[in-house]
Amino acid sequence: MLKKHNFGAGPCILPSAVMEQAAQAVINWNGMGLSILEVSHRSPEFEEVVLKTQLLVRELLSVSDNYSVLFLQGGASTQFAMVAMNFLSEGKKAAYLDTGYFALKAIKEAKLFGEVDVVATSKDKDYAYIPDNFKVDAGSAYLHLTSNNTIEGTEIFDFSATGVPLVCDMSSDIFSRKIEVKDFDLIYAGAQKNMGPAGMTLVIAKNEFLEKGKKEIPSMMDYRIFRDNMSMYNTPPVFSIYVAMLNLLWLKDQGGVSGIERSNIEKAKLLYAEIDRNPLFYGTAEVAHRSRMNVTFQAIDKGVEQAFLKFAAEKGIVGIKGYRTVGGFRASLYNALPLSSVAVLVEAMVSFEKIYTDKTVLELE
Amino acid sequence: MLKKHNFGAGPCILPSAVMEQAAQAVINWNGMGLSILEVSHRSPEFEEVVLKTQLLVRELLSVSDNYSVLFLQGGASTQFAMVAMNFLSEGKKAAYLDTGYFALKAIKEAKLFGEVDVVATSKDKDYAYIPDNFKVDAGSAYLHLTSNNTIEGTEIFDFSATGVPLVCDMSSDIFSRKIEVKDFDLIYAGAQKNMGPAGMTLVIAKNEFLEKGKKEIPSMMDYRIFRDNMSMYNTPPVFSIYVAMLNLLWLKDQGGVSGIERSNIEKAKLLYAEIDRNPLFYGTAEVAHRSRMNVTFQAIDKGVEQAFLKFAAEKGIVGIKGYRTVGGFRASLYNALPLSSVAVLVEAMVSFEKIYTDKTVLELE
Repeated sequence: MLKKHNFGAGPCILPSAVMEQAAQAVINWNGMGLSILEVSHRSPEFEEVVLKTQLLVRELLSVSDNYSVLFLQGGASTQFAMVAMNFLSEGKKAAYLDTGYFALKAIKEAKLFGEVDVVATSKDKDYAYIPDNFKVDAGSAYLHLTSNNTIEGTEIFDFSATGVPLVCDMSSDIFSRKIEVKDFDLIYAGAQKNMGPAGMTLVIAKNEFLEKGKKEIPSMMDYRIFRDNMSMYNTPPVFSIYVAMLNLLWLKDQGGVSGIERSNIEKAKLLYAEIDRNPLFYGTAEVAHRSRMNVTFQAIDKGVEQAFLKFAAEKGIVGIKGYRTVGGFRASLYNALPLSSVAVLVEAMVSFEKIYTDKTVLELE
Repeated sequence: MLKKHNFGAGPCILPSAVMEQAAQAVINWNGMGLSILEVSHRSPEFEEVVLKTQLLVRELLSVSDNYSVLFLQGGASTQFAMVAMNFLSEGKKAAYLDTGYFALKAIKEAKLFGEVDVVATSKDKDYAYIPDNFKVDAGSAYLHLTSNNTIEGTEIFDFSATGVPLVCDMSSDIFSRKIEVKDFDLIYAGAQKNMGPAGMTLVIAKNEFLEKGKKEIPSMMDYRIFRDNMSMYNTPPVFSIYVAMLNLLWLKDQGGVSGIERSNIEKAKLLYAEIDRNPLFYGTAEVAHRSRMNVTFQAIDKGVEQAFLKFAAEKGIVGIKGYRTVGGFRASLYNALPLSSVAVLVEAMVSFEKIYTDKTVLELE
């Protein structure tokens, strides 16, 4: 069978060793004679999994003791509302940076709870850059950022202090690079990129900030309930947490976040260099704001786009079609994608160019 | 290795054939050369899984076209708040039947949104029965029931019309017996009993009722958003939905809900008969309200309780310890638990009694 190179934007590739351990646990976990799918979340064995996963998050991101590490459900989309439900009230305002599709979704949900101050937007250039030099009103409950814009292919590399609590959606770049957790009051991330399978959400929050949260809100929307119940106020997504633990153990073996960051930089450099060199393609994000996780690029015309998608598919390259509203290509280079897969894509672009110079697109099709 | 008989209350036993197919899909799904954990939820292959799972729910429960079948996250605990957030407002009231631990949790969350009218409670007898002959005010937004009380071991067998929309938490008995969906306006259930692994929630709702829902609520708390986006407004819990599909296919092979109901009745009869016969044990729920899913019983004293737990564990019997606030025993007889496992438990009770008549509890320990 043709080896697949999965550049999908999420749910995305996980290390094959993790898949094998996960499959084994579905049959017989830990030699218990039970599947990981049928063990009680209140069993000492599973409580240990939750604790270990928390400790791995703390270790890999150097999270200090005054922060809580929580596992929730509902993805970043639930967090868009939950952040505002906890920390924004009528008559108060929160600052949001509009860097694209998901930032806009966060803004929409926040407006249900109070005033939203969009401090800057890069809509003028189709979100091809990250705005800077914006001002944040000192009275804002928080500033909300989207560290990596999965659809637009941009990433924030500068998290300068603005004087108000910083809340950040890190769904698509958490665990891909070093961050200073202490610069943030609350970080959230859907797990299904670099953490584990779909179905869980990671939250890392400063305890002092959590105490500012509103009281009269639903239990399942109250971060403190998760903190006070070791993320098990109700039945958690057992399998997703277990696979996240396996995946974070794998990450630790890769030299942790510093190790994987070096590899991610190398992968991104290789692909962007080819995009910049190859006359048939061009990148869409401004160079200084290019994401290392989601490389967005376009072909010079629709014919080339279709022909290359087909050409790439024949080489086992999967998931490089751009988001439906944007078109073109998006190659996601998450932690588990090896450099060798990026090399296969780059080689495909090179060979495609050679063939293309001799033939018309119609012939290629 | 000693064969395990898993009587756990949830997450709970699933059929071994389902576990095997799930494990295979984690390695290579559908011969695609990709794991089910790394496929895009927007792929045609996974969209087909969602559709198939919806159709299986419709077929197995005879759900008519004017109802929506939705897959959410967050478990029943999220539904406790979501139902009220959608259908209860300040100045309005909703009726709740208090049948125990989880009913009380639903009541607590609903109070955040409007007035709660507890129409009846069985607290006077430690929730050992289901109250009847209660009156529901015709102006109530809905009546909320808990069809099976997992901790207290009671189950509702009569869903008489009360003139107001009926909302029911069926987390621990859905798919275990025939129900008339048309009698309900909204049914919800955490999946981790008879549907699939933890991490997804099933909602079956009358479209007409959904239209009554409030508008200015978070997208991820709005049932209509899930309905209008085929439960994929954001990334769904891919693996949990896939395993639920496998499990519902298995259920169909067992003769569907009618077939499994016959088997569940037989299993419950066998165990309750032994509880009633054996002088060392007694049931806690009133006979007419005994749950077929969660059989709760007590030993005549703490010494017998401890000794039997140990005795049963040696026979591979797992998960029969009662809920921490209640103590005693709880044997959950979910769909995938075979009659042969119930027979093993009953035999253990019989042999334990024989040994016990000759020896003191201290000797047994």
